[in-house]
Amino acid sequence: MTGQNYQAILERIHRDITPWRTAGRVADYIPELATVRADHFGMAIVTVDGQVYRTGDADVRFSIQSISKLFACTLAFQLLGDALWKRVGREPSGTAFNSLVQLEFEAGKPRNPFINAGALVVTDVLCRRFVQAETALVNFVRRLSGVPDIDYDLRVAQSELAHAERNRAMAHFMASFGNLEMPADAVIDAYCRQCAISMSCVELARAALFLANGGVSPANGERVLDASSTKRLSALMLTCGTYDAAGDFVYRVGLPAKSGVGGGIVAVLPGEFAVCVWSPGLDATGNSLAGIQALETLTSITERSIF
Amino acid sequence: MTGQNYQAILERIHRDITPWRTAGRVADYIPELATVRADHFGMAIVTVDGQVYRTGDADVRFSIQSISKLFACTLAFQLLGDALWKRVGREPSGTAFNSLVQLEFEAGKPRNPFINAGALVVTDVLCRRFVQAETALVNFVRRLSGVPDIDYDLRVAQSELAHAERNRAMAHFMASFGNLEMPADAVIDAYCRQCAISMSCVELARAALFLANGGVSPANGERVLDASSTKRLSALMLTCGTYDAAGDFVYRVGLPAKSGVGGGIVAVLPGEFAVCVWSPGLDATGNSLAGIQALETLTSITERSIF
Amino acid sequence: MTGQNYQAILERIHRDITPWRTAGRVADYIPELATVRADHFGMAIVTVDGQVYRTGDADVRFSIQSISKLFACTLAFQLLGDALWKRVGREPSGTAFNSLVQLEFEAGKPRNPFINAGALVVTDVLCRRFVQAETALVNFVRRLSGVPDIDYDLRVAQSELAHAERNRAMAHFMASFGNLEMPADAVIDAYCRQCAISMSCVELARAALFLANGGVSPANGERVLDASSTKRLSALMLTCGTYDAAGDFVYRVGLPAKSGVGGGIVAVLPGEFAVCVWSPGLDATGNSLAGIQALETLTSITERSIF
Amino acid sequence: MTGQNYQAILERIHRDITPWRTAGRVADYIPELATVRADHFGMAIVTVDGQVYRTGDADVRFSIQSISKLFACTLAFQLLGDALWKRVGREPSGTAFNSLVQLEFEAGKPRNPFINAGALVVTDVLCRRFVQAETALVNFVRRLSGVPDIDYDLRVAQSELAHAERNRAMAHFMASFGNLEMPADAVIDAYCRQCAISMSCVELARAALFLANGGVSPANGERVLDASSTKRLSALMLTCGTYDAAGDFVYRVGLPAKSGVGGGIVAVLPGEFAVCVWSPGLDATGNSLAGIQALETLTSITERSIF
Repeated sequence: MTGQNYQAILERIHRDITPWRTAGRVADYIPELATVRADHFGMAIVTVDGQVYRTGDADVRFSIQSISKLFACTLAFQLLGDALWKRVGREPSGTAFNSLVQLEFEAGKPRNPFINAGALVVTDVLCRRFVQAETALVNFVRRLSGVPDIDYDLRVAQSELAHAERNRAMAHFMASFGNLEMPADAVIDAYCRQCAISMSCVELARAALFLANGGVSPANGERVLDASSTKRLSALMLTCGTYDAAGDFVYRVGLPAKSGVGGGIVAVLPGEFAVCVWSPGLDATGNSLAGIQALETLTSITERSIF
Repeated sequence: MTGQNYQAILERIHRDITPWRTAGRVADYIPELATVRADHFGMAIVTVDGQVYRTGDADVRFSIQSISKLFACTLAFQLLGDALWKRVGREPSGTAFNSLVQLEFEAGKPRNPFINAGALVVTDVLCRRFVQAETALVNFVRRLSGVPDIDYDLRVAQSELAHAERNRAMAHFMASFGNLEMPADAVIDAYCRQCAISMSCVELARAALFLANGGVSPANGERVLDASSTKRLSALMLTCGTYDAAGDFVYRVGLPAKSGVGGGIVAVLPGEFAVCVWSPGLDATGNSLAGIQALETLTSITERSIF
Repeated sequence: MTGQNYQAILERIHRDITPWRTAGRVADYIPELATVRADHFGMAIVTVDGQVYRTGDADVRFSIQSISKLFACTLAFQLLGDALWKRVGREPSGTAFNSLVQLEFEAGKPRNPFINAGALVVTDVLCRRFVQAETALVNFVRRLSGVPDIDYDLRVAQSELAHAERNRAMAHFMASFGNLEMPADAVIDAYCRQCAISMSCVELARAALFLANGGVSPANGERVLDASSTKRLSALMLTCGTYDAAGDFVYRVGLPAKSGVGGGIVAVLPGEFAVCVWSPGLDATGNSLAGIQALETLTSITERSIF
Repeated sequence: MTGQNYQAILERIHRDITPWRTAGRVADYIPELATVRADHFGMAIVTVDGQVYRTGDADVRFSIQSISKLFACTLAFQLLGDALWKRVGREPSGTAFNSLVQLEFEAGKPRNPFINAGALVVTDVLCRRFVQAETALVNFVRRLSGVPDIDYDLRVAQSELAHAERNRAMAHFMASFGNLEMPADAVIDAYCRQCAISMSCVELARAALFLANGGVSPANGERVLDASSTKRLSALMLTCGTYDAAGDFVYRVGLPAKSGVGGGIVAVLPGEFAVCVWSPGLDATGNSLAGIQALETLTSITERSIF
């Protein structure tokens, strides 16, 4: 697959995606997200040898939301290694991303780091290590993407904080099982800020590229994770990265990926590229409807997936 | 049944209960409760015509814990009437007293006012109506029992507050469904204080006597509830008053009752008496082990229950 | 309360119930039940001293369905006594009458004998003891009611058998936990036949009268259960007799009762009477909508309930 | 990776696996399986270009159990294509392989074809199409592996049939939701026979090799599935193939795989090889304990996985 082909494929996807762009429903669980126009569409591929291909709104920043869980988990995994899995599992949840039922049945240990409960444990790890967990995370994604002005959107963060009752419930619930080390309020505060980070498709694809490159960030040569840990994190994205639709996503797209309710999905093909697509309309499972369609088209046309 | 008989029966129960007194396990979910000696036993019967029968530690105060839910529910029912049932159900829960699973499946509406979640909604109602809900409740039980120095134990309240993560989880969870009107922290604060009220068997039996007397408190002639509402509250105690063991309790004892993890159980025989028993050792369902045994003996000997 | 009053009250209820008679929905889970006209209404009171009061279709036979669980449980309780509770619980289920979830979480032991799973265990007990469990049960209700031609409706039984997949699932599920002694097919066969018994309001009230009379059937002087067991069975009806609406039913009506999806409800006031009401339209919980309303009116007017 | 290397790696794995071989627990849910010696260990790799590498008991036949679900699903997918997913999902279950809870919450549609409930739906599809579903399946695996004397073990099949209460419960439960077209007894019969098929590691690796070869069986050149469907089936194995431990398996091993309680696991590396390992001792999730360890060692040494 040559570079010219990727550019042509992105343009074809952009053209063909039109009917899907308005079929989904923009997230409205916090007011700030609901203000985003539904018909945005952007997509970017960054290859491990540094080529960048883009189409549509690929340089427009959006709220990365749960995609931040991927970077937070990477940081916590750097810090703790496999000890992280004592506090959070590595299994698909089989339930909605914000369910408390699983926590009650499994003694406060979240099923994986990509559902909300698991991400709160990850943030708890970061809060314990860093004075300001959200700043540490922002610096991390700045380094990974090579873009120094990435930041979180304060209005989005405040909107998150004002609508965080369910996440607060989870944090206190895990605390009741002894699976939270820092005060719930502090963890929720950092969590809401990290969800509010704004990035573009190109920036996100760059930031995730270490996963396609054996754990080394091509942007600055930094080794983020060793090769084995990188594969394991990709495995985790594959089985748990797209909420309760991971099975369907793997079936249709066949790439490790992480999605967010801001409408972004970042995915990687090991050894080849990272890709990010953005379209704010969501399907019933909370994943970008046009985004999944675009990625399915990408792996169908190129006949390239991990299988 | 004459008064002399009640006195003789209480003394016989006191004598026969010895092997049961140390069979249970004193609650230790908060440190302050765990300091209570296991072998206390007290029991008091107060009849609607004003006779008081007592045995053992019937005048020793203990932490009433969830028995406070009965008085709080009465106050809220006074305020809202049947409108209360829009926010909390009237069905046995079928699950543990502090489960969040039911809340998730039923959109944040607790099954009944005698499980923790339901009691938090009741406290929310009181917090909205009174500047200090716990003070209003303390005044209410002082009036009902005719004992002006009843109060909550500050050390117990502080111990509750320091171990309230699961209740905080419930409060925020219900708030996420829109079923909490006041801030979760304020509701938790009042809830922990009301659980920490200290009363003796005699005082509790007096305070509950309006339920056996058609809604009128014999202590001061105050009409607490109308006759129909009184029956309905008794019905609710019967099906929901002893956590997830209500069926077993009704089967064995046959009286409307409310228990607490401090080891107290208050029960009523309509038209006849209120009875309160206290023994700190609990069974696996969180009810006083010797307490249930004592009440079963009472209704077996007297052949008096509601059936 | 004199006899004339009961007659007058029944007639008043009959008159006032009109708007409720067509508000419910006739059961259609088996075709034979769906053929019953929705606007039937009958009600009968039989007192412990032998007086019979009736109104409307009180002598028309209908499919007693789950009311048969009351008589089957009585028979099994006669046979096994408290040993019965090793195989079936005495707690409200907190879930729908035909749920398998509870069975999975609680190792195949049904919550109580009045939900389908529990009734299947009861029928298993009868199948082990009697060559034809359904015949033994028919003979039992004939004796209790003093009506020798009571029988099950073969067409209804066949319709039940043809639509018994969910009950079969339960039976095999309990068998997998070792909680079924006879072959599942045999138990299902007997269960479907007993559900198909046809009786009228007057016959059902007569048959249940032993529960209001300390365990002795006034019809023939037969002691069905001892006094203590009779109270305990009434307690069980109270907490578990009306599916997942027991709390609401006790709150509104305040009598031990057992309902069936044929639209019948039988209830007792200990020491006084048994009452049976029939109206085929059901509410969302599977209980007769007009039937509950009629019973609530009865206990409101007479100011007589167990509370 | 050259052929010699695979042989050397298998021998190294065989040598190093010794401490793991007796750490697991042989399945005993049916008596026939419990008779197998715990310390068997066999492993075979068959490459897409026809090379076969083997070690230990690689030619000893064992009961393939749930690995049969992979071949049954392939056959049903051939017959119905994506229409199959109307009746069975493609998501990890998040619960035990034989849970009925998920079925109740999701209207009788199993989460995926590799848990028991889903496999029963798949068998129902085969029963509807073939006079003898188990014979059709046996013929299919004979063709795929090129070994004409593969068959099911009648004693194991009879043992399965005698202990199939839970599977019967599932079949009737799905029938109650309309998700079974053939009689439950017929489906259970065929299901138990297909689980009882006996094959060796070499035979299983050969039979699964089409999955590593774009859908074409190298044994006979038969196109089993088109390339896209082959990838999709591999995706499904990855997320759902190892019961409720799929996330952990993907994390550790990183290959699409299907396991059975007989102790076998078959896995594929697309474009390269199929591998089968057998060791009867199971871990708590029902997967071969030494088998997973062996596969993890394989992908660690070779640094070859799908990630």
